[in-house]
Amino acid sequence: MAKKLNKDTQVCMSLAARPSNFGTRFHNYLYDALDLDYLYKAFTTQNLEGAIQGIRALGIRGCAISMPFKEACIPLVDEMDASAQGIQAVNTIVNTNGHLKAYNTDYIAIRQLLADYALDPNRVFALKGSGGMAKAAACALKDAGFSKGYIVARNAVAGQALAKLYGYQWCATEAQCAADILINATPLGMEGAQASQLSWAEDKIQAASTVFDMVALPAVTPLIHYAQELGKTVITGSEVFAIQAVEQFVLYTGIRPSAELFSQASAWSRQ
Amino acid sequence: MAKKLNKDTQVCMSLAARPSNFGTRFHNYLYDALDLDYLYKAFTTQNLEGAIQGIRALGIRGCAISMPFKEACIPLVDEMDASAQGIQAVNTIVNTNGHLKAYNTDYIAIRQLLADYALDPNRVFALKGSGGMAKAAACALKDAGFSKGYIVARNAVAGQALAKLYGYQWCATEAQCAADILINATPLGMEGAQASQLSWAEDKIQAASTVFDMVALPAVTPLIHYAQELGKTVITGSEVFAIQAVEQFVLYTGIRPSAELFSQASAWSRQ
Repeated sequence: MAKKLNKDTQVCMSLAARPSNFGTRFHNYLYDALDLDYLYKAFTTQNLEGAIQGIRALGIRGCAISMPFKEACIPLVDEMDASAQGIQAVNTIVNTNGHLKAYNTDYIAIRQLLADYALDPNRVFALKGSGGMAKAAACALKDAGFSKGYIVARNAVAGQALAKLYGYQWCATEAQCAADILINATPLGMEGAQASQLSWAEDKIQAASTVFDMVALPAVTPLIHYAQELGKTVITGSEVFAIQAVEQFVLYTGIRPSAELFSQASAWSRQ
Repeated sequence: MAKKLNKDTQVCMSLAARPSNFGTRFHNYLYDALDLDYLYKAFTTQNLEGAIQGIRALGIRGCAISMPFKEACIPLVDEMDASAQGIQAVNTIVNTNGHLKAYNTDYIAIRQLLADYALDPNRVFALKGSGGMAKAAACALKDAGFSKGYIVARNAVAGQALAKLYGYQWCATEAQCAADILINATPLGMEGAQASQLSWAEDKIQAASTVFDMVALPAVTPLIHYAQELGKTVITGSEVFAIQAVEQFVLYTGIRPSAELFSQASAWSRQ
């Protein structure tokens, strides 16, 4: 409880244009359960540089970085971990005695899921999107050895740039590609205005054997729902989110919570 | 409890070279008791400018300022309240939508105690010390109408400057002054190496009718103890500390805790 807080309590935080409660609830739940003298609080800012200076000056242990700060914070940190360097996007900063090291735990989570589901890198994938999560996914696929794939993006400049960066092929629309692994890294199917939208066409889903959605909320998007009905292998965005959150927790505290405790914290955080 | 924290929880903090637990315990106790969605955390820093920029950029609601930052923070704030302006020392910053206003609640507390104890401003006082608390006390005495008084300070430069600033007389030693109100604003009698030291000579205490000690810990210093034995009116540093802490709380939250609740919070904070 708040009464337990003291001068030595370590502070972790997040920076986002529109903070959610997930991180605050998730991390504080685990701190309580593991009896760690830590505190987590979501913040927003209109002055990223001042906020990062504050993190350094106040000795804040860690900070999750969300939209729209994932690229803008790069010149403000001292060191880029490989997970963030490859995609030039940061979602986690760890402060060790004033030295700020930047990570991307989304990339780490996607890499881990590609390995956990033992996806054969000789299979052809099609990845829809050209934003931050698409970049993390394309880089993870490349680093996992996938050599054949499509970046499907209406935005020709961003789509072509992303495809070229990792040696994949760009398509403006999904009609132009055929793939065994379908990946969604757009907001289609996300809670809100686009919640009812199926991010890939039904015939593409029917033709694929694996579907991987980066959308975390809801856990079951129209894409996941349809693929499950067809008996496809599915990997959900909530799995990505869960792993990346645990990796942040480990980076901040050095402690890896058990799977059971993690499930409890996730359930609590979604309330 | 930490689980109650959320993205909208307001954060207050303190900055000190050597943070104590008092503020963190005091404010969080009151937040809990009053069910306020606030959180308080003590910080230290080696980069005051970065820390103040962080307060502004992160929307931290309020910050207590302790040694050695009370003067250094002046150029970093947007507005000085009269309580801080007069003595050019800040112990509280309030952040309203990025506008930082600086206060000195020690000054406010001393003013209030001079009024509460109805000390007649025609009486002669002698104030020992020339540091931050001595400045706050001298300014409060001046503003309360006291026209005759001594600043007793071995440090001739600081002592003379302080005396001159408020129109009082400087003495290098207490032997040179005679006064009815004795005030201690030195660390003599404070918990630690100087705990056993009586800050004023016995004959001076015998000749005075009121004794006012700025030392807050312990509540009963040798000065207070001796004056109480002689049946003098005493005003303690723990009274100053208590009032200044409540004033900070009111500035941050807009809520004035009851005297009873305040006593509970103080007792909890001293554990």
